[in-house]
Amino acid sequence: MNLGRRALAEAVATALLLAIVVGSGIMGERLAAGNVALALLANSLATGCGLAALIVTFGPISGAHMNPVVTLALAARGDHAWRDVPAYLAAQVVGAVAGVWAAHAMFAMPIIEHATKARAGLPQAFSECIATFGLLIVVLRGARHRPDTVPWTVACYITAAYWFTASTSFANPAVTLARAMTDSFAGIAPANVPGFWAGQVAGALLAIGVDRALAAPDRTGSA
Amino acid sequence: MNLGRRALAEAVATALLLAIVVGSGIMGERLAAGNVALALLANSLATGCGLAALIVTFGPISGAHMNPVVTLALAARGDHAWRDVPAYLAAQVVGAVAGVWAAHAMFAMPIIEHATKARAGLPQAFSECIATFGLLIVVLRGARHRPDTVPWTVACYITAAYWFTASTSFANPAVTLARAMTDSFAGIAPANVPGFWAGQVAGALLAIGVDRALAAPDRTGSA
Amino acid sequence: MNLGRRALAEAVATALLLAIVVGSGIMGERLAAGNVALALLANSLATGCGLAALIVTFGPISGAHMNPVVTLALAARGDHAWRDVPAYLAAQVVGAVAGVWAAHAMFAMPIIEHATKARAGLPQAFSECIATFGLLIVVLRGARHRPDTVPWTVACYITAAYWFTASTSFANPAVTLARAMTDSFAGIAPANVPGFWAGQVAGALLAIGVDRALAAPDRTGSA
Amino acid sequence: MNLGRRALAEAVATALLLAIVVGSGIMGERLAAGNVALALLANSLATGCGLAALIVTFGPISGAHMNPVVTLALAARGDHAWRDVPAYLAAQVVGAVAGVWAAHAMFAMPIIEHATKARAGLPQAFSECIATFGLLIVVLRGARHRPDTVPWTVACYITAAYWFTASTSFANPAVTLARAMTDSFAGIAPANVPGFWAGQVAGALLAIGVDRALAAPDRTGSA
Repeated sequence: MNLGRRALAEAVATALLLAIVVGSGIMGERLAAGNVALALLANSLATGCGLAALIVTFGPISGAHMNPVVTLALAARGDHAWRDVPAYLAAQVVGAVAGVWAAHAMFAMPIIEHATKARAGLPQAFSECIATFGLLIVVLRGARHRPDTVPWTVACYITAAYWFTASTSFANPAVTLARAMTDSFAGIAPANVPGFWAGQVAGALLAIGVDRALAAPDRTGSA
Repeated sequence: MNLGRRALAEAVATALLLAIVVGSGIMGERLAAGNVALALLANSLATGCGLAALIVTFGPISGAHMNPVVTLALAARGDHAWRDVPAYLAAQVVGAVAGVWAAHAMFAMPIIEHATKARAGLPQAFSECIATFGLLIVVLRGARHRPDTVPWTVACYITAAYWFTASTSFANPAVTLARAMTDSFAGIAPANVPGFWAGQVAGALLAIGVDRALAAPDRTGSA
Repeated sequence: MNLGRRALAEAVATALLLAIVVGSGIMGERLAAGNVALALLANSLATGCGLAALIVTFGPISGAHMNPVVTLALAARGDHAWRDVPAYLAAQVVGAVAGVWAAHAMFAMPIIEHATKARAGLPQAFSECIATFGLLIVVLRGARHRPDTVPWTVACYITAAYWFTASTSFANPAVTLARAMTDSFAGIAPANVPGFWAGQVAGALLAIGVDRALAAPDRTGSA
Repeated sequence: MNLGRRALAEAVATALLLAIVVGSGIMGERLAAGNVALALLANSLATGCGLAALIVTFGPISGAHMNPVVTLALAARGDHAWRDVPAYLAAQVVGAVAGVWAAHAMFAMPIIEHATKARAGLPQAFSECIATFGLLIVVLRGARHRPDTVPWTVACYITAAYWFTASTSFANPAVTLARAMTDSFAGIAPANVPGFWAGQVAGALLAIGVDRALAAPDRTGSA
């Protein structure tokens, strides 16, 4: 398929993803009467369910990466053309921002905001490292062995990762950037974005290494 | 299969869908002790689970649309015969109303009610536009590429959409009409129905357009 | 496979099912601090998840009916030998009671109890009628068209039915009988059992009729 | 594949599993404002979702046992080479401990802890017996008849088992050992570990027996 259509798919998919992440955070917090576990439960289930639907829907067109580190990791492994990477990344960022704005419009909030929610510190960055490592292992190994299940395993993984990482698992640089533009449940103060990005890059590099180790041919050549 | 049996399937499926949507809303609200997030969690999980079961069950007979905009959008793309559309729409409306009444009977409520719950304003209509756009993209693209997964992606999408849209995602004109006939958690005041319908039609048109853009053959003919 | 092994499979599966239904009800109620919606959420998710695992696991041996009305409805359609029905029903009842007792032992309760929880009235019986109708339609149509998905659609249906019926959807005469033997969240006072059974039989007969109507060959013979 | 790579897969998978179990327990308890049902809901959904993703991801390499009794039961049935068992068990234990430590690092807790949470008594051990019996029946029968569904049935089973057993279903000796090393929601006092192990071994032996009974050829040889 041509790159324009694939970039359109990435943009629409990422916009819907951010509308889901931010919108369900707003709704969850509004209805949960102060119980943050309930708000995160709604947020995590909505995100997981949404991811499964989006990856199945847009996967046949663009792969439905919706995530720069996924695009880059697949390119690094030779599964995605490097010349297509800039268009993918641009579509993901543009779509992510549009999705945040759509969520704000749905919930009658100011369209343009910036986050004030602090997510600082080394444990947060380490959480993003683990979160991104896990996500990329699921994607890279799944794409190799069981591509049809990837929408469902990514959805399951992210639902779990909202809970098992202290950062609630952004695991996505474009999502992180866009979430700095909402002052709601899913927001992240702009000052904390670089720490998240650093953790995400570290986790991605680790995943690429482990993926290679797991895929290495046997010395006896019997793989 | 003949149209009578397919219309019967649409009617039974839509009746069960409305019994699920309205009934689980009543049960959720009764048990949640005032916590609306808990009620919506029950309502959204029951609806998502119910949708998956219904689409798998009735899909082989009628397609299990249960939704006029799905029927119309498939007809517009040439995937559904226009001459069958009136029977489908009639079955969906009749089934939806019967389902609401069945829910009322199960919960010992008056059978005939009209809703008093206000769902007014432009953000609500915009929410319905986004909700319907997403649903139809999931259905139209899924039916093209991965028809066996459509029951599951629709279920996941709607579970997410209960949370990420401010309107809790009706995304269905027949469901909207029937939900005006219950004065319970899932109700919508009759005066607010036209706004929801307008949003749903706008979202459907947008989805048909994006579906065409994503499906357009490459200029080079290599699609 | 021989009948003894199939009956063993039915008994073990039904025992695990009742341990799940009763045990998760006990745990849910103990931890929910009085919030019944939370207890039912735990109970419904555990039951749905457990059903999926059990039907996949025991289905290849016995069909994993775990339910007399499923066995009888399949026999009525000619999909199950009538001569095997008594052994199936006996295994289901024995397994169900053993499962309740296992739950009591796990939670340090008296093994032998009888329920005091009232579930009386016509709306409760009507709820069981709708619940059983829906379950059997899902099973009968699914077994015809998409047998591999039946474990998942039954699981989804029952999770939804816990919420959308006023009776929390027993939909199973053996389960109803066994649940009269626990004085916990999932219990039902023995005096209310006949009303549930009547609703379940009515729902089963309705489902058998609708299943036949949906499966009837076209008059033109082109089905 | 060579044993080194398979052991690496077991270690990474088990580390992620324990990070999920312990991390989501910490997050759930922190956010649930004292409602233990909510904390366990988060913990059980995260564990179930995580298990599905991990088994699909690592299954094609090592089988993704992540559990000594699974490895041993498969070896006892002849489905796993006995000479590979020690490496698997070592990888599982090392991975499990590393996963607990990763969870502590993410949540800014002391890396090295020991649990103080009491889980004593015969009903707890009996719960572990039932929990492990069910898990192994799901794994052993599923691996025989429907291997592609095992990741999903194990995930569903464990989600249910968190609720229907009084012990919240550890069902895994390596996980039990590692959870003695965290003083958080998922912890178990070291003094209670032997009782859990005894229950797990009893349940495993029972499952191996029932698996054999269900698999026995018919006397007539017509199986």
